[in-house]
Amino acid sequence: MVVILKKDTNKEQLHQFSEEMGALGLEAHVIVGQAHTIVGLVGDTSHIEIDRLRDMDIVESVQRIQEPFKKANRRFREEDTVITLDNGTKIGGGNFHVIAGPCSVESEEQIVGVAQAVKAAGATLLRGGVFKPRTSPYAFQGLHAKGMRYLLAAKEATGLPIVTEIMDAAHLPLFEEVDVIQVGARNMQNFELLKHLGQVNKPILLKRGLANTLQELLMSAEYIMASGNERVILCERGIRTFETYTRNTLDLSAVPVLKRLSHLPVIVDPSHATGDAGLVRPMALAATAAGADGLIIEVHNDPAHALCDGSQSLTPDAFGRLMAMVSAIRPYAEKYGAPGEGGTAQ
Amino acid sequence: MVVILKKDTNKEQLHQFSEEMGALGLEAHVIVGQAHTIVGLVGDTSHIEIDRLRDMDIVESVQRIQEPFKKANRRFREEDTVITLDNGTKIGGGNFHVIAGPCSVESEEQIVGVAQAVKAAGATLLRGGVFKPRTSPYAFQGLHAKGMRYLLAAKEATGLPIVTEIMDAAHLPLFEEVDVIQVGARNMQNFELLKHLGQVNKPILLKRGLANTLQELLMSAEYIMASGNERVILCERGIRTFETYTRNTLDLSAVPVLKRLSHLPVIVDPSHATGDAGLVRPMALAATAAGADGLIIEVHNDPAHALCDGSQSLTPDAFGRLMAMVSAIRPYAEKYGAPGEGGTAQ
Amino acid sequence: MVVILKKDTNKEQLHQFSEEMGALGLEAHVIVGQAHTIVGLVGDTSHIEIDRLRDMDIVESVQRIQEPFKKANRRFREEDTVITLDNGTKIGGGNFHVIAGPCSVESEEQIVGVAQAVKAAGATLLRGGVFKPRTSPYAFQGLHAKGMRYLLAAKEATGLPIVTEIMDAAHLPLFEEVDVIQVGARNMQNFELLKHLGQVNKPILLKRGLANTLQELLMSAEYIMASGNERVILCERGIRTFETYTRNTLDLSAVPVLKRLSHLPVIVDPSHATGDAGLVRPMALAATAAGADGLIIEVHNDPAHALCDGSQSLTPDAFGRLMAMVSAIRPYAEKYGAPGEGGTAQ
Amino acid sequence: MVVILKKDTNKEQLHQFSEEMGALGLEAHVIVGQAHTIVGLVGDTSHIEIDRLRDMDIVESVQRIQEPFKKANRRFREEDTVITLDNGTKIGGGNFHVIAGPCSVESEEQIVGVAQAVKAAGATLLRGGVFKPRTSPYAFQGLHAKGMRYLLAAKEATGLPIVTEIMDAAHLPLFEEVDVIQVGARNMQNFELLKHLGQVNKPILLKRGLANTLQELLMSAEYIMASGNERVILCERGIRTFETYTRNTLDLSAVPVLKRLSHLPVIVDPSHATGDAGLVRPMALAATAAGADGLIIEVHNDPAHALCDGSQSLTPDAFGRLMAMVSAIRPYAEKYGAPGEGGTAQ
Repeated sequence: MVVILKKDTNKEQLHQFSEEMGALGLEAHVIVGQAHTIVGLVGDTSHIEIDRLRDMDIVESVQRIQEPFKKANRRFREEDTVITLDNGTKIGGGNFHVIAGPCSVESEEQIVGVAQAVKAAGATLLRGGVFKPRTSPYAFQGLHAKGMRYLLAAKEATGLPIVTEIMDAAHLPLFEEVDVIQVGARNMQNFELLKHLGQVNKPILLKRGLANTLQELLMSAEYIMASGNERVILCERGIRTFETYTRNTLDLSAVPVLKRLSHLPVIVDPSHATGDAGLVRPMALAATAAGADGLIIEVHNDPAHALCDGSQSLTPDAFGRLMAMVSAIRPYAEKYGAPGEGGTAQ
Repeated sequence: MVVILKKDTNKEQLHQFSEEMGALGLEAHVIVGQAHTIVGLVGDTSHIEIDRLRDMDIVESVQRIQEPFKKANRRFREEDTVITLDNGTKIGGGNFHVIAGPCSVESEEQIVGVAQAVKAAGATLLRGGVFKPRTSPYAFQGLHAKGMRYLLAAKEATGLPIVTEIMDAAHLPLFEEVDVIQVGARNMQNFELLKHLGQVNKPILLKRGLANTLQELLMSAEYIMASGNERVILCERGIRTFETYTRNTLDLSAVPVLKRLSHLPVIVDPSHATGDAGLVRPMALAATAAGADGLIIEVHNDPAHALCDGSQSLTPDAFGRLMAMVSAIRPYAEKYGAPGEGGTAQ
Repeated sequence: MVVILKKDTNKEQLHQFSEEMGALGLEAHVIVGQAHTIVGLVGDTSHIEIDRLRDMDIVESVQRIQEPFKKANRRFREEDTVITLDNGTKIGGGNFHVIAGPCSVESEEQIVGVAQAVKAAGATLLRGGVFKPRTSPYAFQGLHAKGMRYLLAAKEATGLPIVTEIMDAAHLPLFEEVDVIQVGARNMQNFELLKHLGQVNKPILLKRGLANTLQELLMSAEYIMASGNERVILCERGIRTFETYTRNTLDLSAVPVLKRLSHLPVIVDPSHATGDAGLVRPMALAATAAGADGLIIEVHNDPAHALCDGSQSLTPDAFGRLMAMVSAIRPYAEKYGAPGEGGTAQ
Repeated sequence: MVVILKKDTNKEQLHQFSEEMGALGLEAHVIVGQAHTIVGLVGDTSHIEIDRLRDMDIVESVQRIQEPFKKANRRFREEDTVITLDNGTKIGGGNFHVIAGPCSVESEEQIVGVAQAVKAAGATLLRGGVFKPRTSPYAFQGLHAKGMRYLLAAKEATGLPIVTEIMDAAHLPLFEEVDVIQVGARNMQNFELLKHLGQVNKPILLKRGLANTLQELLMSAEYIMASGNERVILCERGIRTFETYTRNTLDLSAVPVLKRLSHLPVIVDPSHATGDAGLVRPMALAATAAGADGLIIEVHNDPAHALCDGSQSLTPDAFGRLMAMVSAIRPYAEKYGAPGEGGTAQ
């Protein structure tokens, strides 16, 4: 950690600062420059709150050298995390999975039908929302317990593990047979929810918030991991920018950056990022080529009558064609590891 | 509502579309252009989900003319909402209040001391966090129940109504004697929390999320109001942009825009927006001049040793000088109402 | 074009408005709603300035249905534009090209050496800056005329057509033997420069500005085309967002969106977008998979001693490996055309 | 300057690095930490290109402590720059000026009429565009030489100094009698234009680009100053964000930040920032309260028929009321100087 002190810092203040740092187990090395004093702090700084340093009168700025996350950090665990589901499905570590299904579970027929179709096309997990975060209180909010029942029927019918979103820890009892619990973008920094999920024995699919940096995404993963659950899957799903043609801006650099910084699996959601069925396939191919560990794609049997997000949903047929193209590209995708090239070891 | 249909829409499809709209209680007026067909939908469209229309095969785009919020909408309630607290304090409708206090409640002495100091300087509400949303799981998270006890002691000692943040509806029992419950920026779209707060008989101070539009802020207010609690105070606290010198970019246009669109009170938080004590006063003066109904300002007895956000906290002395300047400007601030000038009636 | 009138618009005003529109060759179709009046304008609206309508007293809002660009618009020209260079190289229309070379031309040896290396690896055009836009007036600004001489020597030595950036129309005489003239992101809305380049008989590589929408990029292409030069290549190179880990955020959705809206070739620059050599290859693969018509990649013989942007430059060896991977992916990339799938015909 | 070296840097590399820094006149002080080596560089680093350091193999990151601008830097010149126009008008240093006038000069009658009206209301400079940067090549681009003649007629009629925008250095001969030359947001990083304006003996009003940081704005001022012209006026006019209700997001924190970092005058343009006449006055009052040195406001005799930007223009009457309110607030505005409070000396 590097601390820059203000130019009028006197010797006594400097001495006192060094003492305080010593009390925290850190050695303070001082370099006196022309206009500033630079202090290098040597030792384990991961427990230091950077804001506490910034708040000191004599401090002008502070630069952290170590990343503030530990359990999610590739520096402390080189090999990829591999997450194994109950049916043996392995996520991460070179495996590639496509999670597919409708935005919302609407009926048993619908979800079982879509599940069978996406399984036939090669999807290995089923998604479907039963609790839906909607901007408007007047919009359809999901079928809740009834929807969960339909989703479980689809799991039973197809054997596909299921992924569905949680919005409130109080709903956890309904998630007992869910295979992967999703935290949506709007709840990425709902820290109380993250802490609850840290005590659950299920993998968590954590979506990046619309205005959150990659470091913040990793800090939210750290919340879950620090609370005891190390099975976190990261998901890039687009961020907010000034561009209005697409609903969000899919930040595919997130894939190599997250793989460089962390050992956790990284998947991409091109459906929510673009909000436009015609853009899903090119972005799915791009994410695959960039080396993502998987995709999450909205598929609906009848997009024109979907209860939500139909305009970004593919038909099962179109999804089948997408899967064929994704499978063709996957063998040639970026593989991480080569220093300075694949992004990992840089 | 205006719907643009694709150019290859045929008569039969158009007829069927008109029928479907009729079933929803809307008259469809059709204008056939060179390349597109325009349909104007006449009737009450507030219950129509715009995405459902967008998802139809023949639809190219949809434009809502009415805003999608009702209870928060000035169109349906012209006079300002005035919120009265238990001690008679009135917020909104031409009243002006400064809420002040530390980021975190740290001890009884601290919070009582700050409360007395800010009251002496003219603050009329006390703020202080006991549940703290922190990016890092390793950072200080607040004193929780103990902090609430200290905060209530400060309320008792000074008579100031208190404002403090909630992060989980499960904590509501601790908030019984709180005067105004704050929803932080990260929870602005925690819809489950909003619904719970809609059933609470206390004013809610709702902060704008870092990546949320003003319309989304009003939709989140609508969640609370639609659930039964119409006492919502809106708060602008900075948004995320590419500028890195300030922590966030304070969007002061939010003040006249929100006052134009809504009857709810609007306050501004220059402390969190800038993250820099030296910028708080000019931004507080600017917010006052723009016609905000109040401010929320961080004040700490000893910023250099604050447990959080010290670098943006003012000392009680500096806060006193700020209050004097704010009071001097307030009589000359924007007053809303004149068509096309104050922003309301435009 | 759809115009929404304010609710207090009276009959006389409406009549006068219809007359004014008639004078512009447009038929005004009026739909009277509950709170608003909707007017559909039928006829050729491409010459109408939308701001002029917005400025009218009775107008609340205006929505354009037709895009405001014509020459760049795929609606008016379905087949891809193919640009043929003097040496027969064809850009667009299913051809794929990689433009490679150093940020700056530094010496004759350097540029000739890099040119030979990138040609050997499969690059088909050479890039190299001789006029460099730099944030600081104290930074290296390029070798100007001397650099151009070296660049032409590299063209002669290898036969590679050359691409280099122009910053001022007054420098055009130096560009006589340049094959493709590049307009940098900072000059994307330097309209006077664009108008000059519209009178030049050379292809223009137009980079998207850091804060410009895709529609604005197409409007800038339209400036060049409307001035007489229809040979424009569009280039996505990252936009400004709040994310700080990468220099910019590469917006790969730009590829399918631009291909849908326009017939012009679209290439991608992962080097400037990421600013990080370790991220260039995964992003190059992603851009290829998404269906870009080409890439522009920074390659330097000695990145650690480059006069600019070394940290994002690949060595010739690393570039060779990238080319092999790009070539492997290209056959499986998105091909545009299928309605609703490839993004074009949606 | 602080340089962080990669953890595998060996002694020999470290020695060579120190030698290279020595050759640049800098002393390298080395601190060896657990995972990194920190090097503090002591000496005058203002001539060091930070990118050159970043490009070195052994370097992980570099942090500049000194700002990269010198002539614009308040650290090297404490007192405010005061710019005196030919008629004696002084800008900066506690003076306050309102520049007003139409977006475009449309006719002699129009501009003389508006000039008389804004002068009567208290404006001390006249603005009016004769070269207009427009997104569309088909939009009105200004009256050019003829417009300049009309503008000069208005100057003669009223005695008001005139401010107008330049888009191409080749047009400079037309600007001989212009008092202040404006560089628009889109040209803020048109470095060739800035260099030309550095050789002109007239004050330059430099607008912040839509995606430019405050540091980049100061670097562009530095371009003009380093080329010989130290009379630069900075102008905040809104930045691009995800918010769509306003045209841009006015970043008023720019006022105290720029006054802290620089001695140059800072003015604010609420008309272009908001794009909405109803928001201009509250934002003008806010900018005044924040301590801006002036405002630039669009005023049009007949906004509904303006050739551009009518929807953001005030009538002369509304402008008169704005001026009265601005004048009332100005005496109570932020004055810079008190350490930690006004933002300057922090």
